[in-house]
Amino acid sequence: MLKLSFKPYDLRLNHVFRISRGARSNAPIILTRLTYEGVEGFGEGSMPPLYGETPASAVQFLSKVDLSGFKTPFDAEEILGYIDALAPGNAAAKASVDIALHDLIGKLLHLPVHQYFGLPAAKHHTSMTVTIDSPEAMAKRAQEFAAFKYLKIKLGTANDRQIIEAIRTVSSQPFFIDANQGWNQKEDALDFIHWLKEQNTVFIEQPMLKEDKDGQAWLAARSPLPIIGDEGVQRLESIKEAANLYHGINIKLVKSTGLREGLKMAITAKALGMKVMLGCMSETSCGISAAAQLGALADWVDLDGNLDTSNDPYQGVTVNQGLLALTGLPGIGLTHADWDEIQSIAP
Amino acid sequence: MLKLSFKPYDLRLNHVFRISRGARSNAPIILTRLTYEGVEGFGEGSMPPLYGETPASAVQFLSKVDLSGFKTPFDAEEILGYIDALAPGNAAAKASVDIALHDLIGKLLHLPVHQYFGLPAAKHHTSMTVTIDSPEAMAKRAQEFAAFKYLKIKLGTANDRQIIEAIRTVSSQPFFIDANQGWNQKEDALDFIHWLKEQNTVFIEQPMLKEDKDGQAWLAARSPLPIIGDEGVQRLESIKEAANLYHGINIKLVKSTGLREGLKMAITAKALGMKVMLGCMSETSCGISAAAQLGALADWVDLDGNLDTSNDPYQGVTVNQGLLALTGLPGIGLTHADWDEIQSIAP
Repeated sequence: MLKLSFKPYDLRLNHVFRISRGARSNAPIILTRLTYEGVEGFGEGSMPPLYGETPASAVQFLSKVDLSGFKTPFDAEEILGYIDALAPGNAAAKASVDIALHDLIGKLLHLPVHQYFGLPAAKHHTSMTVTIDSPEAMAKRAQEFAAFKYLKIKLGTANDRQIIEAIRTVSSQPFFIDANQGWNQKEDALDFIHWLKEQNTVFIEQPMLKEDKDGQAWLAARSPLPIIGDEGVQRLESIKEAANLYHGINIKLVKSTGLREGLKMAITAKALGMKVMLGCMSETSCGISAAAQLGALADWVDLDGNLDTSNDPYQGVTVNQGLLALTGLPGIGLTHADWDEIQSIAP
Repeated sequence: MLKLSFKPYDLRLNHVFRISRGARSNAPIILTRLTYEGVEGFGEGSMPPLYGETPASAVQFLSKVDLSGFKTPFDAEEILGYIDALAPGNAAAKASVDIALHDLIGKLLHLPVHQYFGLPAAKHHTSMTVTIDSPEAMAKRAQEFAAFKYLKIKLGTANDRQIIEAIRTVSSQPFFIDANQGWNQKEDALDFIHWLKEQNTVFIEQPMLKEDKDGQAWLAARSPLPIIGDEGVQRLESIKEAANLYHGINIKLVKSTGLREGLKMAITAKALGMKVMLGCMSETSCGISAAAQLGALADWVDLDGNLDTSNDPYQGVTVNQGLLALTGLPGIGLTHADWDEIQSIAP
């Protein structure tokens, strides 16, 4: 019998995480566990306040879940279809069930999830994120991340150029640039992207408001760098339109409702000739280890959400000199997970 | 160690199979077997002469396959990527390896392939195909197929209307209409599709030459029935363009290079809002039982290619009153398969 447990959790960040649309020093999270015939699968959904979910909404959603009608965890599409149909929204809560289900399936089959999906264990360098602060403080953070191959720079401020110039005085690492919808004039954005290209930038993430579709289409037609949709691309159904607005998509499991729909998003985006990036929120090693299972489908990976936290209850993928390494263990590959020792923390 | 065996085979048809572009009474086929740790997986590729592959080309292609570099059959994307890169084309030969690999994986995991893909066992009524002959002869065949819910009618002749009228004197079953590129005037095609709609037709398959993309786009914008691309939609890479030309796609494993790419095609087509149909060639129960694993992703199913043959060496899915039933067994679910008893027949 399939049994679901869940606990709200409050993940503590070592540094304030500031982007163009807000700042925080913790991450409200829902942790899940699915058990079946004595085997445990672990899942997680991180809920940044901007996305509208809260531990309370996740608990309310997960309290409705009744898996007694499902005989085996291998009927993934039917189980996740049922979960998805329980209520609209709740993407992170849904992802927390999907991840636990895939961890469980992998363990039952003695296969890492990536191999269950037929995918190789990808070797990616993850970017490390420098969040918004003064140019000097951001340059100092960049120096601390000198071992990483890529830096992800949060922009969308009044002094974006000074930030880049300050970081370039201490670092020549290629940049992933994330404006988090912070650029509102498309002509200015295009000029700045041309300049960023000269500063060794790989791509631009979500430059403008997701609602400004005409502006985004205009920019995508002219940008000398790939533009990746994040806030503007949530689930599988949004990719058809996104193909006309962006050159690629940032897949985050808390947006996609988990691994299975994330896999479909990656397959669809690649079939349409789009780039695929894997992203995350501030998460424990559970969510990060899950997302890493899709690495083989990604052009770029930004899976650093567990690296600057102080109370991660799990251990899974490792990062060494920026290189993300899967553990090779069944499921999502956690090397430490003890449900009973995790103290639920209501944020 | 993964070991591949293969045998050319000549599948004999009980009736001449005639479409707008040719006729035949046999089907040249390549049969494959993959073995790993004492477990066997079976595959097949049917090679209609019009598609350009032959038993000789398949044998030449499969003779190049060296799987000694692969440690486990679970690394499906890497194995099939290697197969695909061996030579361009050869879609049926490639499919024969893909099917054997998935049959093997399912057996090793003790899961039907559909469940390995997370999909439920779909219950579909397959159409039964009435191939081109005189209107009277086609009506007679339709009567023989009275137990089926759907008839697939091959058209693209000088007397298409008479054929439909003759069949409608003996049958009220809904039609799947397949013109096999036989209609060359788009205005005439549109008029005829309007008339076919009144004759209880569900959809139209490949009305015009696949090269006439302008004509097809014109027709798709006006047709009162869904238009499904078959000859015009081969592999995953063709779906992006097909979305502008057709309302849906006919996935055949011998075109898609097998189950894995067929699965991706179905996912992508559905994400783009297109209809999905599963089709086949004249095939043994091996190829049909494989295609049936993707049934849950299909709107319509035309998997009748093994039903009118006299020397099918396998047993798998069954059809009762038109209802296609999976066996529930691991892999593609064959209930009879004995490699050594199969006599290779050079067509």
